[in-house]
Amino acid sequence: MSTQSKIVVLRWGHRHRDFRVTTHVALAARAFGASGFILADSEDFAIKKSIEKIIESWGGKFDFKIGIPWKTAVEEWKRKGGIVVHLTVYGENIETSDIINRIKSLKKDIMLIVGSKKVPSDFFSEKVSNFSVAIGNQPHSEVAAIAIFLDRIFEGKELAKSFENAKLKILPSKIGKKLLENISKDDENC
Amino acid sequence: MSTQSKIVVLRWGHRHRDFRVTTHVALAARAFGASGFILADSEDFAIKKSIEKIIESWGGKFDFKIGIPWKTAVEEWKRKGGIVVHLTVYGENIETSDIINRIKSLKKDIMLIVGSKKVPSDFFSEKVSNFSVAIGNQPHSEVAAIAIFLDRIFEGKELAKSFENAKLKILPSKIGKKLLENISKDDENC
Repeated sequence: MSTQSKIVVLRWGHRHRDFRVTTHVALAARAFGASGFILADSEDFAIKKSIEKIIESWGGKFDFKIGIPWKTAVEEWKRKGGIVVHLTVYGENIETSDIINRIKSLKKDIMLIVGSKKVPSDFFSEKVSNFSVAIGNQPHSEVAAIAIFLDRIFEGKELAKSFENAKLKILPSKIGKKLLENISKDDENC
Repeated sequence: MSTQSKIVVLRWGHRHRDFRVTTHVALAARAFGASGFILADSEDFAIKKSIEKIIESWGGKFDFKIGIPWKTAVEEWKRKGGIVVHLTVYGENIETSDIINRIKSLKKDIMLIVGSKKVPSDFFSEKVSNFSVAIGNQPHSEVAAIAIFLDRIFEGKELAKSFENAKLKILPSKIGKKLLENISKDDENC
């Protein structure tokens, strides 16, 4: 994966009752290396607030956009040369096909689109989605789908990356909890 | 991973408001190759019903237990020779440590325990958890954590497996949706 490529996640079909799942989608996007998140066709500012609180404590840059219609977001992305990947149970299987290599070989910025149960039928057409990727062809979760896609595309390296300007940082431990609070520049090398 | 080893997921701390997230946890467990799920210390039968509906349509064996106290489940598991792996942001990083190989080399059955925000402090002690595994040390989602752990331990093979006695089956496609309904034995080789 070129270090120049960036990935943003577009979430479609959010309703307020999906608050926890959409929050998990956004947190997984951030933790697994996406650089931004678009909550399309929704104005649920509680989600934005919840993610901003995480960024403030745990650091890193993560661009959160809200309320943009999905069509506008997709059109703008493509105009700038990016490609669109639809994560759907109906797509090409990430394990049994060569789709991840075909996507990587393009070295383009990627917009990952995920919906809830029903998505606009346009998501399944080539005019919107350059690729349809299935994280296995069994029903499960958009949270799991995003995590696995990003883990495969970044080859696991995203799980080792450090986040700038964090107030909180964990020291991985065999047992117990080790949390550094109000960390300074010096602590960042721990 | 020995084909003899099996993995079950124990979910702790479920409240009814977590309905969607816990459902996603159980679906991810099933889709990514766990053989069962325990909703400990909770009697939310709506979750059980929702997962049983999926199994009926999409096939496979998946043992769903509900209402068992977590201590009882852990003690029974260990008595039968299984090990316990706690998925927690505070644990050893799955990418930067050799923890996944250490777990695999034991070739034991695994109980994966995941909580919500607060879990009993015993989960962090060696008397309960043989291993503490962090899917990166950033906050994200128990759904993502389970998916990545299972994907790493089964080395992706779980995404290619077929589920017995399915009524529904997807034919992976580059575009559109291809769903086989009421499939017969003959269709199963498609």
